[in-house]
Amino acid sequence: MSNEKIPYKIYLEENEMPKEWYNVRADMKNKPAPLLNPGTLQPMTAEELAPVFCDELVKQELDDTTPYIAIPEEIRNFYKMYRPSPLVRAYCLEKKLGTPAKIYYKFEGNNTSGSHKLNSAIAQAYYAKKQGLKGVTTETGAGQWGTALSMACSYFDLDCKVYMVKVSYEQKPFRREVMRTYGASVTPSPSTETEIGKKILADHPGTTGSLGCAISEAVEVATKTEGYRYVLGSVLNQVLLHQSVIGLETKAALDKIGEKADIIIGCAGGGSNLGGLISPFVGQMLRGEADYRIIAVEPASCPSFTRGKYAYDFCDTGMVCPLAKMYTLGSGFIPAPNHAGGLRYHGMSSTLSQLYDDGFIEATSVKQTEVFEAAEYFARVEGILPAPESSHAIKVAIDEAKKCIETGEEKTIVFGLTGTGYFDMFAYEKFHDGKMDDYIPTDAEIAESLSKLPKVD
Amino acid sequence: MSNEKIPYKIYLEENEMPKEWYNVRADMKNKPAPLLNPGTLQPMTAEELAPVFCDELVKQELDDTTPYIAIPEEIRNFYKMYRPSPLVRAYCLEKKLGTPAKIYYKFEGNNTSGSHKLNSAIAQAYYAKKQGLKGVTTETGAGQWGTALSMACSYFDLDCKVYMVKVSYEQKPFRREVMRTYGASVTPSPSTETEIGKKILADHPGTTGSLGCAISEAVEVATKTEGYRYVLGSVLNQVLLHQSVIGLETKAALDKIGEKADIIIGCAGGGSNLGGLISPFVGQMLRGEADYRIIAVEPASCPSFTRGKYAYDFCDTGMVCPLAKMYTLGSGFIPAPNHAGGLRYHGMSSTLSQLYDDGFIEATSVKQTEVFEAAEYFARVEGILPAPESSHAIKVAIDEAKKCIETGEEKTIVFGLTGTGYFDMFAYEKFHDGKMDDYIPTDAEIAESLSKLPKVD
Repeated sequence: MSNEKIPYKIYLEENEMPKEWYNVRADMKNKPAPLLNPGTLQPMTAEELAPVFCDELVKQELDDTTPYIAIPEEIRNFYKMYRPSPLVRAYCLEKKLGTPAKIYYKFEGNNTSGSHKLNSAIAQAYYAKKQGLKGVTTETGAGQWGTALSMACSYFDLDCKVYMVKVSYEQKPFRREVMRTYGASVTPSPSTETEIGKKILADHPGTTGSLGCAISEAVEVATKTEGYRYVLGSVLNQVLLHQSVIGLETKAALDKIGEKADIIIGCAGGGSNLGGLISPFVGQMLRGEADYRIIAVEPASCPSFTRGKYAYDFCDTGMVCPLAKMYTLGSGFIPAPNHAGGLRYHGMSSTLSQLYDDGFIEATSVKQTEVFEAAEYFARVEGILPAPESSHAIKVAIDEAKKCIETGEEKTIVFGLTGTGYFDMFAYEKFHDGKMDDYIPTDAEIAESLSKLPKVD
Repeated sequence: MSNEKIPYKIYLEENEMPKEWYNVRADMKNKPAPLLNPGTLQPMTAEELAPVFCDELVKQELDDTTPYIAIPEEIRNFYKMYRPSPLVRAYCLEKKLGTPAKIYYKFEGNNTSGSHKLNSAIAQAYYAKKQGLKGVTTETGAGQWGTALSMACSYFDLDCKVYMVKVSYEQKPFRREVMRTYGASVTPSPSTETEIGKKILADHPGTTGSLGCAISEAVEVATKTEGYRYVLGSVLNQVLLHQSVIGLETKAALDKIGEKADIIIGCAGGGSNLGGLISPFVGQMLRGEADYRIIAVEPASCPSFTRGKYAYDFCDTGMVCPLAKMYTLGSGFIPAPNHAGGLRYHGMSSTLSQLYDDGFIEATSVKQTEVFEAAEYFARVEGILPAPESSHAIKVAIDEAKKCIETGEEKTIVFGLTGTGYFDMFAYEKFHDGKMDDYIPTDAEIAESLSKLPKVD
């Protein structure tokens, strides 16, 4: 093993934890395009967003000039319960691979939500509480976000209504129970509690629901109920802002041990983890202070960066939310049932889309079965059972480390390990039993979906 | 909040981690009674134990004079992947309770096995590998031990055969899949792979198995298969030795922040966690260097300390294993289906039994529903979803902290949070739905079971 003096796990001290989030948009010359009102096709104003989101979060959503935004003390105190997360030197993985590369991963799974989602959930709950709201609504698919939000709401004594895609509600009863433990109400979607839910149930009896439908229900309840707002766990600028705590800690830890990353790798669904991880590093690139190779990894079944189009599109399948300019497969694209539920989103964060379009990020897509092969390999050598989402990054990190064996280069590879797979064992079971498929949409399918993009000038 | 300068989480540096385990027996004036051969009723010799356990582990099992035993470097390297575990200052719990007490917990759940079991699993796998064995066998009920052992065997490339109680195998498919991810073979017990399994199936068609039966199968396979030995996750002296890493880290962390514990609390099933946590502290008491109040917490449904008898008994219900002198409810005692599967054992570690008999430990029992109330309360304020087993300690820690509100005493309470409850959501669901019962054996039931204790002079 090289460099024995670096410990297996690098923890920042509590007083080294970030006191401000970093807003990468402030350093971008080409700003991400604004959200558009789906009716007028004009940029959404703060007033238009206020019925949906908390005031402070609207401000953060629209702010593309302030580089650093203070993390309120109450949030920092909550962070101290499960942060700083460790930056882990993957000595065992390096040894097993026989690579000269140095591999590090930032592990965000050591909290009960099981993923990085808690970083933004606690911020959004805090601002809701500060505004004197009674509660928030949201949707959840696989359940990480719903779990994180219910933990955050419990901490601030806020009501939390989660609309959970019906098929997940039934297939993931454990996730549902974790949310109930934190006092959230969990409703299978579509439900008869909302107009849109009733309509969908009437039109499609027996439907098992979709994320798009659950979003529509959550938004309807938030906007129609006094004292409630809607919150979202990915895609939005505010979420990337909160998640920058991942990248800031990673960079601080690397600086502390005198290490500089060559390659930074993250899985990409809506972009919350990838955006959070890379923000401070991309900031350096934008300011001309450093250079990195940054790789977004997406599932071959839902390849918005690698096979999508950079265009305005609806954020939800219900087409009631604002339009965002982003790499998209079309809001009508139904991703195949890949087990990385957190990556099954038709679009991509506007900020990351602009950075990708400007060449600061590269992207690659990987197949489900090779992802699970990498997941199992990693679990056995590093002792952590990774979430399917995170395992996309593992797969590419291992590939890059293998390239270093051939070239002999001692590259420093950093990847984001966003969470644990304890609630994904049905997927692992399918993999073990050889019953896992790879789903790759055809060109025709994608073209068909993209042909229905909304027409914006 | 008092004492703001102490961080929420106290981590030792890697070079502050223990390099030796502590063998509390060395400091005990009244040594734990030896294991007896079930045939001859004479103390088991190393030769007699050798077909069952690895040679080095037999040595550790019988050694009651060496106070410190070096932790081999390979094991210390594995420990570095998930240790040191944090000692957490429960600021949020203190604040919520409004107690002047200072509450700390040693959190052992941040590894994929989800509990402290990995500390001994990796040691036992290491010695098996060192002896040139092909593999090991074991039994598992709830699954924590089986998971830990499969991770350890995977690391050292050892074969791992787990006999899992059939009812758990069917009800906990996730645990089974985690073990498969680590390459273990998992067989529902009773099986047709062993003589004892076939006999039990013939005598009791349709049985869903028991821990006692699974132990018997695992021992049979280990002793009849070339290059295999049997390993056990609790009760044994060797296990308490390995688990002393918990207490050593806890004590080092407390010393580092200049804190002295007044009360130390741990849940008690077979004794692996409690013994590991308290060993260094009890060592101080035995040497007259310090005094602590030490509380063992057991389920009211399986109260070996509080309602059992200190006597020689079989370690397994199949009555094929050696006899141990311990607090026991009788090896025929069938604990009611309490959801803290890890605490459903009829006996208690010989070492802890002797310490309890000598007055170094006190014990209390708590009911299942009040344990889950404490678990949910804790989850909501401290953000960690605890295992049912661990929650027994939480319940009593909260009770002690409440007493401090009345007396105004600023006591320092330390408890062991042995693991997470991600695989126990069926139990939480029952609790949420108001369908959880409290099971308390009658005096007559316990007397009946104790009347069948083996007669040893």
